[in-house]
Amino acid sequence: MSDVTDLPLIGAAALRARSAARVLRTLPTDVKDAALAAMADALVARSDEVLAANAADIEAAAAAGTPDSILDRLRLDAGRVAGVAAALRELVALPDPVGDVVRGSRLPNGLQLRQVRVPLGVVGIVYEARPNVTVDAAGLCLKSGNAALLRGSASAFRTNTALVAILTETAEKSGLPAGSVELLPADRASVGELLNARGLVDVVIPRGGASLIERVVRESTVPVIETGVGNCHVYVDASADAAMAEAIVLNSKTHRVSVCNSAETLLVHRDVPFLPRLLGALAGAGVALHGDESARAAHEGVVPATDEDWATEYLSMDMAVRVVDDLPAALEHIARWGSGHSEAIVADSASAIADFTAGVDAAAVLVNASTRFTDGGEFGFGAEIGISTQKLHARGPLGLPELTSTTYVVTGSGHTR
Amino acid sequence: MSDVTDLPLIGAAALRARSAARVLRTLPTDVKDAALAAMADALVARSDEVLAANAADIEAAAAAGTPDSILDRLRLDAGRVAGVAAALRELVALPDPVGDVVRGSRLPNGLQLRQVRVPLGVVGIVYEARPNVTVDAAGLCLKSGNAALLRGSASAFRTNTALVAILTETAEKSGLPAGSVELLPADRASVGELLNARGLVDVVIPRGGASLIERVVRESTVPVIETGVGNCHVYVDASADAAMAEAIVLNSKTHRVSVCNSAETLLVHRDVPFLPRLLGALAGAGVALHGDESARAAHEGVVPATDEDWATEYLSMDMAVRVVDDLPAALEHIARWGSGHSEAIVADSASAIADFTAGVDAAAVLVNASTRFTDGGEFGFGAEIGISTQKLHARGPLGLPELTSTTYVVTGSGHTR
Repeated sequence: MSDVTDLPLIGAAALRARSAARVLRTLPTDVKDAALAAMADALVARSDEVLAANAADIEAAAAAGTPDSILDRLRLDAGRVAGVAAALRELVALPDPVGDVVRGSRLPNGLQLRQVRVPLGVVGIVYEARPNVTVDAAGLCLKSGNAALLRGSASAFRTNTALVAILTETAEKSGLPAGSVELLPADRASVGELLNARGLVDVVIPRGGASLIERVVRESTVPVIETGVGNCHVYVDASADAAMAEAIVLNSKTHRVSVCNSAETLLVHRDVPFLPRLLGALAGAGVALHGDESARAAHEGVVPATDEDWATEYLSMDMAVRVVDDLPAALEHIARWGSGHSEAIVADSASAIADFTAGVDAAAVLVNASTRFTDGGEFGFGAEIGISTQKLHARGPLGLPELTSTTYVVTGSGHTR
Repeated sequence: MSDVTDLPLIGAAALRARSAARVLRTLPTDVKDAALAAMADALVARSDEVLAANAADIEAAAAAGTPDSILDRLRLDAGRVAGVAAALRELVALPDPVGDVVRGSRLPNGLQLRQVRVPLGVVGIVYEARPNVTVDAAGLCLKSGNAALLRGSASAFRTNTALVAILTETAEKSGLPAGSVELLPADRASVGELLNARGLVDVVIPRGGASLIERVVRESTVPVIETGVGNCHVYVDASADAAMAEAIVLNSKTHRVSVCNSAETLLVHRDVPFLPRLLGALAGAGVALHGDESARAAHEGVVPATDEDWATEYLSMDMAVRVVDDLPAALEHIARWGSGHSEAIVADSASAIADFTAGVDAAAVLVNASTRFTDGGEFGFGAEIGISTQKLHARGPLGLPELTSTTYVVTGSGHTR
């Protein structure tokens, strides 16, 4: 176990969380649900406090020259506060995974075997900007019986402080232990401490850009669930319907550009006859196109794409376009450049759909649907703590069951081997 | 992705495995099963080759002064070879997890959502001594559609080379791709390369002692499933039956001392009247006892226990003994010193059993049963690749489903948000 004296910035909070986790572990569902409902009410009732803090964060960030896509992530308004409160209420309606028997059997020798869901314990979350994550993460952790150590970005620190004050005051009044939700200092060093609080923290979930993920994976001795980097592709097959392809590509790219499930690269089969029209529609919607030679031949104003374009998660109104000879070439491009998040195919050929689905190794494969559907809310899981792009533990949207572990309970009557 | 030129020892093997994994991913179950059956037959038919190689390993290890408990792990005989072959045949009978739909639903908007099991890809296993792991690991990986990169210990290198030669020759004759099973060099540096082959290797599973696990956790940028360290306890409650307690404690300690699910520490409630008889039975079975003052007062010849005894996974005929005031004190001892593997209670009190089961945070809790039952074979999972002591992904015996990830397949008909 880590020595708390090595953790000057987060040690006290981590110990409080550890102690809270022992209580949360066996807390009845109705107590947790009542606390979540009260927290939702309190957020709405006290949204003025949140919005004042957020306005100060936004002003400081804008003055520091923060780009618009980041300001969009940072900004709250009454509607968004009501939205995060609604997400808490949705959690109340979702089943509590703790205590679920995942599998159970009576073994031939008479032993009773049950695999039971238990909370992970203390969950550390490192995230950038978006303050709604503060509430979503706290709610998901509490409902699944975990204590939450939240390390948000410095740019949202005033907003997060206001949110966590409301959440913790309400939680404690509702019978949850102190330490159930802790906001960590936004220093760079606090991340390092969190990543090495082995024994005090059970899992760290980074939610942010590639450089954050890279740092966490490199430094952490605490187990990690990677989330968030989405270099997503839409592949338009030769068998695709023109109108459907246009709708899905436009939606995947432009519905909300600053999120991880938006599309960044368009791959088009060389036999698709409507490429000029498709690129024209994208350009008409304000998308800046970066393409290979065939794409540039199909539409004026497409700038040349380089390997950097294939690799980039733009998070902006830019899209890379490549014309491929066949479906295997599209799969190869995705295997080489994709981040294992969401990959879509638009096609009417059942064999093309089957080959694409079998050939793509990603958290989600979308068939004739927008990449924007890879989302815990859209999947019916309630709020999500992130979208895992790793293969271990959980892949795709992280809902409540993904925030638990299990214990095997083996019951005998004096059984020996 | 890792640069293969940085991996002089394992790069070529990792690339072969990566390429094999793409084929294994979609290989039909009957092809995999036929290969496993043929591998089992070949191991038995060619067991002379294996035993000759093993005799050379044993001779060299004994000459180097290797302790008996390690020699026991290293040694194969015709019976043990038949045993690993039988484990491969049991895998044939187990269901293939690949393609299983873990959950599926039709969303309100008409989208079809299916979460489908897929192989992890390339699985690296680092293990010590026991050559049966070579066969178990290869079999489990292949049945679950994964390629296996095996890094066994130097002391078993001749045995492992013989085993892998038989496995790979048979596998390729049965239609499995080259690279499905690769034995890595036993240098210390090959472990370091494996731990940093991010992008080429999907998961590393260390199977061995505390120092190996520690190194893997510290160095690895590839996701890890920790296994193997078992500092397991048996707690004898005041309500326990004397004969049952004696049978379970003796079995947990002495049935096979060199394995991770054997017990290392006995915790006894101070009101248990039969402590002298229990300690006498252990001593009579040849167990060297290390105890606190109360234990020493109950039986002659108990040497004083220190904190090191509470912390040690003996893997020998030694046992630490502590008398505790009550069940919470036993839970506190286990939380402080346990490794999260297997914790047993012997009790007749339902409330004591419930408190123990709720209070212990471990892979397995055994109620009135020996710790030796925490085992993939005993649980009916077939051969196991190890026993996970971490909370993420899989906890407890790692069977076939634990060697898979999932993909969400989302099917629409032109759906956009």
